[in-house]
Amino acid sequence: MIRRRQFLTAAPAVAAAAALPMPAIAQSSPELKWRLTSSFPKSLDTLYGVSEVFAKRVAEMTDNKFQIQCFAPGEIVPALQAADAVGNATVEMCHTASYYFVGKDPCFAFGTAIPFGLNARQQNSWFNNGDGSTLFNEFTDKYNIVSLMCGNTGAQMGGWFRKEIKSLEDMKGLKFRIGGFAGRVIQRVGGVPQQIAGGDIYPALEKGTIDGAEWVGPYDDEKLGFAKVAPFYYYPGWWEGGAALCCMINKGKWAELPKHYRAIMQSAAQDAGNWCMGRYDQQNPAALKRLVAGGAQLRPFPQDVMDACWKAAHEIYAEESARNPMFKRLWESHSAFRADSYLWWQVAEQTYDTFQMRQRAKG
Amino acid sequence: MIRRRQFLTAAPAVAAAAALPMPAIAQSSPELKWRLTSSFPKSLDTLYGVSEVFAKRVAEMTDNKFQIQCFAPGEIVPALQAADAVGNATVEMCHTASYYFVGKDPCFAFGTAIPFGLNARQQNSWFNNGDGSTLFNEFTDKYNIVSLMCGNTGAQMGGWFRKEIKSLEDMKGLKFRIGGFAGRVIQRVGGVPQQIAGGDIYPALEKGTIDGAEWVGPYDDEKLGFAKVAPFYYYPGWWEGGAALCCMINKGKWAELPKHYRAIMQSAAQDAGNWCMGRYDQQNPAALKRLVAGGAQLRPFPQDVMDACWKAAHEIYAEESARNPMFKRLWESHSAFRADSYLWWQVAEQTYDTFQMRQRAKG
Repeated sequence: MIRRRQFLTAAPAVAAAAALPMPAIAQSSPELKWRLTSSFPKSLDTLYGVSEVFAKRVAEMTDNKFQIQCFAPGEIVPALQAADAVGNATVEMCHTASYYFVGKDPCFAFGTAIPFGLNARQQNSWFNNGDGSTLFNEFTDKYNIVSLMCGNTGAQMGGWFRKEIKSLEDMKGLKFRIGGFAGRVIQRVGGVPQQIAGGDIYPALEKGTIDGAEWVGPYDDEKLGFAKVAPFYYYPGWWEGGAALCCMINKGKWAELPKHYRAIMQSAAQDAGNWCMGRYDQQNPAALKRLVAGGAQLRPFPQDVMDACWKAAHEIYAEESARNPMFKRLWESHSAFRADSYLWWQVAEQTYDTFQMRQRAKG
Repeated sequence: MIRRRQFLTAAPAVAAAAALPMPAIAQSSPELKWRLTSSFPKSLDTLYGVSEVFAKRVAEMTDNKFQIQCFAPGEIVPALQAADAVGNATVEMCHTASYYFVGKDPCFAFGTAIPFGLNARQQNSWFNNGDGSTLFNEFTDKYNIVSLMCGNTGAQMGGWFRKEIKSLEDMKGLKFRIGGFAGRVIQRVGGVPQQIAGGDIYPALEKGTIDGAEWVGPYDDEKLGFAKVAPFYYYPGWWEGGAALCCMINKGKWAELPKHYRAIMQSAAQDAGNWCMGRYDQQNPAALKRLVAGGAQLRPFPQDVMDACWKAAHEIYAEESARNPMFKRLWESHSAFRADSYLWWQVAEQTYDTFQMRQRAKG
């Protein structure tokens, strides 16, 4: 059942043993210093914080023998070059969202989220207990990367808009700051996806250079102050129903580690990942209250927008599957897991949560 | 923010240093053998399996120096004496559901679940990122127990009934196999809670000695074959919206561990806990399909049953809070977290899942 473990402890180590020089590590618990480059700025204290929690856990578990130093984007490697830097061993590892690299290959999306994909718990289950990690690591192996899931944001918000979106018609020509796979979906329903770095979004919204922008969820969004210039705050973020984060580790460096250090990194990734999801679940409610008190107006995406985006996303999955065999394998595994998961989810989870919300609303 | 860590790495170690003999452990990574007694039979391969995954992780991370042997209930300690055996150091640790011990003190419920309490992700967040672990460990400290959360079942099912429950009236006099806190709620709405061990439930349902029985969810329930004798399968299990499992460790034994072994146990508990939740999320859907194909008839609890049980549960919380100050602190923390959590949950999480289910139903 523990396919993730089987893959990570057996396959890469064996493969690497043939291709790499013998590790220069004689002691059973050697002193090591690694560098981790994060793709997230320190101001996003949860996304960046995961890497620090991860490094702290590894240090604690090795009696401070294995030290991992974390760097913000640009300190040693730019945010979007993290995977390249790991693959060519400029740094030993990074912490990132793998879908930043869909420009190389759309398969990278499956390590984070795809539009209308799995929610956070389902993504964990698919990756750790199902086929996810085995397939995704088969894919990243050709980039010399070993991938460990490490964190999740939960279902994100759908972003901030200057004007209300009342129907699909309002998406036509809409300049919306959104990246990667989701941008392709937006384009197909008539929108104009825009790639803008975090710090440039606010002035672009203020001037009207763009009409809307997505970011993460209440806790992270609050820091950027979008409510003042684009007050309509939409949900759900259908392109990130449970966005996972990822530790990517250079394959050769991974193979050189003593086996128990690899085990420690695996459990540290799970532990830091739980810290991340738990912190979002703890911080988002209060941030949402502050945002609404400060003028944010919550709106659900209209049904026809949701339906059109679903259709567009699934057209893209069919097209990618036709031309990319690895994408096809990942998509078929992911979507089969989704169909089964939601069959069960609607019975106990959803009815429990729905009742709890109703009681809350009644006071 | 990392209150769990602050408590677990600082407070008990300091307190124990004064009260306990110096550890007999000179080496920095000593060879240790511990015994873990599980409260779950081996036939429940996920609930029992968590303890084996936990022990395997600890062994892997210590290069096999720290070996924990797992025992099924009755092999060395009966299922429901696990906490006592840990407190008096008969065994070093157990893996259990803390609410088995509500007979000692109802505060034990907060380490697992309370009726209409937090869902699985919220329970993780409250325990690990919020005040949960700090408060719960303050409570279990007087039993000489250090508690680490380790696993969750997700929202459970509401059990199997010989006849349909069409309204609250049908609960009157109903003999329902259910334990602990939830049994008190059932009693207050007119039912007759029954305490029956797992293996005795089937014949009792078959003969009509009882009218219904709750167990866990599809994957575990399937093994007991209730569908044949009590085909009405109700949801949601409002007494266990996210039932957490727990590693309980003898306080003195914990204090004797080298600091990095304690850190390893903490991350192993998180990692094994994720394995548990992920395995239920992976196994329940297929089990549900098999159960329905085999004759199980899914039914939601009627609204008036849900409302009456909610009211009864909250009366009990008020009564316990009036007589038990620790219960009051735990309940106030838990319920405040619940109110905030569901405010946020209904925005992005619930609307995302609802849309996904609708699309699934449409094919």
